[in-house]
Amino acid sequence: MATHKLLLLPGDGIGPEVMREVEKIVGWFRKRGVGFETETDLVGGSAYDAHGAAISEDAMKLAQAADAVLFGAVGGAKWDTVPYAVRPEAGLLRLRKDLGLFANLRPAICYPALADASSLKREVVEGLDIMIVRELTGGVYFGEPKEIVTLEDGSQRAVDTQLYHTHEVERIARVAFDLAKKRRNKVSSAEKFNVMKTGVFWRQVVTRIHKAEFSDVELEHVLADNCAMQLVRWPKQFDVIVTDNLFGDILSDIAAMLTGSLGMLPSASLGAEDPATGKRKALYEPVHGSAPDIAGKGLANPIAMIGSFGMALRYSFGLTDEADRLDTAIANVLASGTRTKDIAGPGMNAVGTQDVGDAIVKEL
Amino acid sequence: MATHKLLLLPGDGIGPEVMREVEKIVGWFRKRGVGFETETDLVGGSAYDAHGAAISEDAMKLAQAADAVLFGAVGGAKWDTVPYAVRPEAGLLRLRKDLGLFANLRPAICYPALADASSLKREVVEGLDIMIVRELTGGVYFGEPKEIVTLEDGSQRAVDTQLYHTHEVERIARVAFDLAKKRRNKVSSAEKFNVMKTGVFWRQVVTRIHKAEFSDVELEHVLADNCAMQLVRWPKQFDVIVTDNLFGDILSDIAAMLTGSLGMLPSASLGAEDPATGKRKALYEPVHGSAPDIAGKGLANPIAMIGSFGMALRYSFGLTDEADRLDTAIANVLASGTRTKDIAGPGMNAVGTQDVGDAIVKEL
Ligand SMILES: CC(C)[C@H](C(=O)O)[C@@H](O)C(=O)O
Ligand SMILES: CC(C)[C@H](C(=O)O)[C@@H](O)C(=O)O
Repeated sequence: MATHKLLLLPGDGIGPEVMREVEKIVGWFRKRGVGFETETDLVGGSAYDAHGAAISEDAMKLAQAADAVLFGAVGGAKWDTVPYAVRPEAGLLRLRKDLGLFANLRPAICYPALADASSLKREVVEGLDIMIVRELTGGVYFGEPKEIVTLEDGSQRAVDTQLYHTHEVERIARVAFDLAKKRRNKVSSAEKFNVMKTGVFWRQVVTRIHKAEFSDVELEHVLADNCAMQLVRWPKQFDVIVTDNLFGDILSDIAAMLTGSLGMLPSASLGAEDPATGKRKALYEPVHGSAPDIAGKGLANPIAMIGSFGMALRYSFGLTDEADRLDTAIANVLASGTRTKDIAGPGMNAVGTQDVGDAIVKEL
Repeated sequence: MATHKLLLLPGDGIGPEVMREVEKIVGWFRKRGVGFETETDLVGGSAYDAHGAAISEDAMKLAQAADAVLFGAVGGAKWDTVPYAVRPEAGLLRLRKDLGLFANLRPAICYPALADASSLKREVVEGLDIMIVRELTGGVYFGEPKEIVTLEDGSQRAVDTQLYHTHEVERIARVAFDLAKKRRNKVSSAEKFNVMKTGVFWRQVVTRIHKAEFSDVELEHVLADNCAMQLVRWPKQFDVIVTDNLFGDILSDIAAMLTGSLGMLPSASLGAEDPATGKRKALYEPVHGSAPDIAGKGLANPIAMIGSFGMALRYSFGLTDEADRLDTAIANVLASGTRTKDIAGPGMNAVGTQDVGDAIVKEL
């Protein structure tokens, strides 16, 4: 039987406590004969405290060797003043870059039972199911020059570089079109071609890939600012949205917030398929952050983290039945009213992080 | 008596028909002795059709000479394939850059009478009153290099440059703090300091100006992605948001959409004060676009355009009483139920563009 190597990087804040619930789920599957091997290491502020770096070389080696990385969250006020190069986020950015995780999949799903938690009207978001496909290893996040320079007169100039190559746009477009084919067959490509050359370029490449390889999928181009507006106005018009690293950062956060249940949303970051093994590097993480304000209190909702493991079952291990089983268990627990404070309805008793994990194991 | 020189640039789509209603208002004030002198010229697609450029040199001269420019809207499918350098948006970008209009003020106000038109719940947006202060002449909009390059192997590389200088961030920060002092005394500064050097720089400069000149104003720093989320979750936490050109483009569109009444929102773009004359260059435009789908049908809501003229009265001419009078007239017309289709409540009879303009003149 195949063994699946998982690296757990709980990170900071609520990361460790939500990861603990994933370990329960992993344990349950292991007992039923699914071969999971897990290692655990530090990332973010906790790695800085231990090693003076946002991720150690050893942890990077484990990540390279793993079939999938499960990532919790990083950051907190404690590390707000550490040197820039070793700030908590640097660990996550290095994992994305060094593992080549160019495709970030962020589903935004509004569960009917939770629709009232949204700040939007129920009819606007109920049943929402969109997928944001964000380019994750290019653009302004990594382009050079990226620096602050002091000029002769003592004033300063800061620069970041938004940079894209043909193959980077091609491969993320293919991911989006492929996903759309399994969904509602529509891709909305978001950029600012009216002011950015990278936007002009993005539009050209996406159009070319569409014509050559996916002409049966509906494609629309939308300006990133208008896309943000339309997400607020009537999000159900979208199926798959494909966009660059920076716009994807913002648009996926908007989409997540629409659902009213940030604590519920998983994400997957995937690399290219290795032609020899058919495998791809992958990292799975909740959309929510480290939430330092509630860390250590057992209040955090572990479902986004558990759902991220569900995405690993599906995308990294091809364990579709197991993934479906986990999704059903999560849905049943939600329906039964076992909910953390962030999603407990009015008059409902909120339970703790561990209670939700235990209830999901029991459902399984 | 002083004469105020206005340049009207109606532009494309619904631009001309909403500008016509402003002319009625200008006429009304002129009859009551306020010295307005107006000229009209082309911009955007209509300028391209006439001159092959998105704005002619003559129009630019008029703009330089005017005390205020009133701008309608530009763009439409007809010009989607014109050469990039002369696309309709280029006219607006040139006006901003050549007139030095670095400070873009975009109020987002949710009128109680219209709160139900929002896709957000009434309690989330009712009474909302925030001001987005967007840097408008720097950042990724104008930084060089900005190009698409073909490489030796035939593939391409596209680049845009996000660039900020000390004085650019200082002056926009001052505008934001000054505005906050006349409002609820709070500034939220949005950037991505965790991934962008321009974000680190932005945060440093804003912090320094705050300490040195505005320490009595509350200042918070917020990541741009989180700011987008918070605008959707609970926008009333904000008073003034100050941010760069690109984030401002997106965040101000989100804020506008929250109010549920895009057709209502004006904006002002201001230059630096001339130390000799005390005057500043200024352009006023509605937040909405050219809406080609309803252009020429007399359906467009002229209030954003008329409100933009109201901002000109206030910010360019110091005509505070006149501006208040116009705002009151607009509010009364709204309350009376004279509304275009975009904001007519259920069961209300929608009126046309001209009816709204006429009703406002009558109210005056
Ligand atoms: C933590 C930060 C570096 C990161 C990003 O900007 O990509 C986060 O906002 C995200 O969306 O995963
Ligand atoms: C028309 C376009 C160039 C412009 C921009 O991106 O600034 C518009 O979206 C705006 O916000 O005024």
